[in-house]
This record gives sequence, C-alpha cells and structure tokens, in this order.
Amino acid sequence: MSDHGSGSGDGAAYAAPLGDVPDVPRPSAAEEARTLVASTTVAALATLSDDGTPWSSLVRFATLPEGAPVLVVSTMAEHGRNLVREPRASLCVAAGGDGDPLDRGRVTVAGAVRRPADDAALAAYEAAVPSARGMAAYTDFSVWVLDVDRVRWVGGFARMDTVSAADYAAARPDPVAPAAAAALSHLNADHADALLDIARALTGHPDATHASATALDRYGIGLRVTTPRGPASARAAWDAPLTSPDELRAASVELVDRARAAA
Amino acid sequence: MSDHGSGSGDGAAYAAPLGDVPDVPRPSAAEEARTLVASTTVAALATLSDDGTPWSSLVRFATLPEGAPVLVVSTMAEHGRNLVREPRASLCVAAGGDGDPLDRGRVTVAGAVRRPADDAALAAYEAAVPSARGMAAYTDFSVWVLDVDRVRWVGGFARMDTVSAADYAAARPDPVAPAAAAALSHLNADHADALLDIARALTGHPDATHASATALDRYGIGLRVTTPRGPASARAAWDAPLTSPDELRAASVELVDRARAAA
Repeated sequence: MSDHGSGSGDGAAYAAPLGDVPDVPRPSAAEEARTLVASTTVAALATLSDDGTPWSSLVRFATLPEGAPVLVVSTMAEHGRNLVREPRASLCVAAGGDGDPLDRGRVTVAGAVRRPADDAALAAYEAAVPSARGMAAYTDFSVWVLDVDRVRWVGGFARMDTVSAADYAAARPDPVAPAAAAALSHLNADHADALLDIARALTGHPDATHASATALDRYGIGLRVTTPRGPASARAAWDAPLTSPDELRAASVELVDRARAAA
Repeated sequence: MSDHGSGSGDGAAYAAPLGDVPDVPRPSAAEEARTLVASTTVAALATLSDDGTPWSSLVRFATLPEGAPVLVVSTMAEHGRNLVREPRASLCVAAGGDGDPLDRGRVTVAGAVRRPADDAALAAYEAAVPSARGMAAYTDFSVWVLDVDRVRWVGGFARMDTVSAADYAAARPDPVAPAAAAALSHLNADHADALLDIARALTGHPDATHASATALDRYGIGLRVTTPRGPASARAAWDAPLTSPDELRAASVELVDRARAAA
C-alpha cells in the first residue's frame, strides 16, 4: 500500500532504463522498519496524558530479538505516569543524516506496553543504554516492553508502507547496516570508475557519465546515475543476500567483475 | 517545580564554591523552552489515532512570534487524519549535539490545533521549510496552528520545570543562541586563560586549575571547572543581558576585564 503516488524511490526516478532491466531484490518494508529500529536507542514516545492530550517525549530504548522496544521510565515524568494509566503507546524512530529529515527513513511502531515477566528486557536496556545501569533500582522507574501490533514505515517522500505485526517480528535487521555508511564513503571516494561500470552494464544506463552509491543493504547497492537523458536512481543486486558486513568486500568485487564481463 | 531532586544543573555540582558567590541570573524555564523551539524545524508530533493509540511521528514545523508551532501535514498520513478528528496534540523538540540526548535539553509543547484564519502561518512554514513551498496547494495538505496550553521543559538530568502558557508566549528565544556554538568553540580553543581567570575570580573557585565554557546565553556563560577539590559547574553573568549575538564579543571582553580587576 503506497500513498503520495507509488514510486519506489529507489527505482529510476527521472531517466528510465534503456531496454529491459531485471527486477532487483530490495529490502521489504518490514526489513526496513526492523533495520531502522535496530539502528538507534533514541526515539520519540507518544503516550496519553490524563487530560486527553497525546504526549510526545524523548526516550532511549532497547530492542528485544523479536523487535519489541524496551523502555525504562520514571513516574516523575509525565510519560511514565501515562504508561501506568494507559498502556497504548507508540515510538517513532528516525534515521540520522544530513539534509531534510523528511527525505530520510522513519518508522512508527505502535502497540501496548506491559511489565516484562523476566529480567531479559532490563538486561537488554542496560546493554543498549549503559548510562542507565542501576536506574531501574529506583522505585520511581519501571521497565516496559512495547508489544507492537501496528507498524508504519516511511522511506522518504513517496516511499512508505504499512507492515503487519507478524512481518515486523519475523524480519531481521539488515546485517550490513552497521558498516554501510563507511562502505559507501569508501566506494564513492575510491571506486567511482567501478560504480560507473556497474551503472552502465547492469542498470540499463549504458550512456551513464557518472555514478555514486547512495545506499547499501543486504540485497544490493543503490546508485545515483547521471546520463545525457537526465539523472536516474538505479539499483544493482549482490550475487546473493549478505549475512554479515564481512561479506561486503567480496560482494562488491563480484559485482564489478560481473559488470565488466557484461560490458 | 522540580523532579529528581532540585539541582539546578548549572550550579556547582561537585566542588562547592569557596566563600559567598553572588546569585547569577540564568534563563527562565520559559526562555529555555522558547529558545529550544526556535532552534529547529524538526520535531516529534503526538496525535491520537482512531484506535486510541497515541501516534508518534516526525514532522517539520515553523514557530509563530508568540511561540505557537505551525504544521503542514497530509491526510494521506496517519497524523494528518488524526488532527482532523482530534485536535489535541503535542510536539517534542530536542536539542542536537553529541553524547547522550537525555543529557541535553528537550521540551514538550501541548495544546490543540486549529486552522489559521490568515496566511501568516503558511508563510512562516514555507519560510522555515523551503522544500515545502507549494505543498499546501495539494488538497490533502492542511495548515495547522498548535495553540499551546501546556509546556514541560527538561534541561537534562535533574533540571526540569513546567512552564505556563502565558510565560511561554511572553518569553523570547535567546538572541545569542544562533551564535553560541561557534562562540563556545572559539573561547575554548583560543581563550582558556581568560576562562580560567573568570572561574577563579568570579565563581568562587580561586584554586581552579582549568576551565572550559559549556554554555552561552543572553545572561552569561556556563563553565566546567577543575579544582583540587573536584570538578565543578559554575556560571558568570554578563554586565547586562545581551540582545544580539553582535554583543557577545564586547561582553566577553568586559567579563575578562572584570575577572582580572578582581583577582
């Protein structure tokens, strides 16, 4: 389900590919959502205040293996009192970066909080937020797990989707994400020629004059391509989905080899 | 009203001043809140979804002269549909920077949205968010003004206050704020000796061995001081409140002169 038009964002945005280009796998909305939530420990929490006002506040959080966020909040704060009275809540997590934040990804995970039955949630929180160690021992602090029943992911303008709770829980954060920013910088700084070869041979832009990498994920690489027909967004897939950042280098070499063999 | 103890945060945190130190004016909570809201155009919005879930989302906003936030949102997005049905909402604005975001300032402004009566709100939004120009012409976008009736400011751990709507509206954003980060860097890089003289002569730490500037506002300068008795937070006031960043240089010179005359 898409709003504001159905553009994929990563597909060719202005100049269309010349000829047939095979479909390229990309992360599902559930995978994008899980990856975003796993990328940070800072989020905006919405709770319901006793005067009926939805209350927006800043929190830190951890994520359990199935994607449920963990909060540790004080009843001295309004959001803490709100959760005691009304368990329904949501968290918005936004991708960092430069430029307009509305051009970047964000996700809202919504559901109801509950007190965890064991110590795993608190352990996850204290691992994710070391400065909070010992805080749960204060009587005004409580540990909460948000059981997610609704997920809305926005990848940027005109790229968004609703994700089912089951798909969200089943998806895995992108294993490449922690290394993606550094790898992108390296590719763009040192391998512009290889990126151009990929754009020309594998993405339907044989007349490309420049290409830079804009995204890296477990399935492939996103490119911004310059052509005489205008700019284009393009995407090329790794030989197989990656399961670790350690595989990025070999996958990149294979992709360039494939592009040069096809040229 | 203070929670988590009543420490001012900017007062001496560990090593107490030696002897009497005059009270130093500092920004009011209302001024801190207005300054934070004026510092950015990115916030987390909380609205109420039709299933009763408080819904957290990322928005950009502008601020009217009396401090009321302006939003332009689409009914294709859940927060846009929520505002049509339920006008109560709040915005959380967080200070940027490095380190733990819970150590920095944030503010929640809560109230009810209304459609503005004239074009001033849209003009303010388009000035603050140039990429949104023309967006309000789409039929799914609406302009909203949040009439603020409740404000909660948190300056960091153990420094927080509730601000009345009248005080929030009457307060003015700190005129020095846009220049504060650059001025702090300059003072710390080039004027460590002057900062140490200020800490020794004016803040009750005559045995200080190092001082760095941590905050600059219309009323004065915050310092992190090292002493043989332990670290301390301290504050020194300008000769008179500043009304423009242009006055920072002369005020700093006067403060150093005063410190050296008192030594």
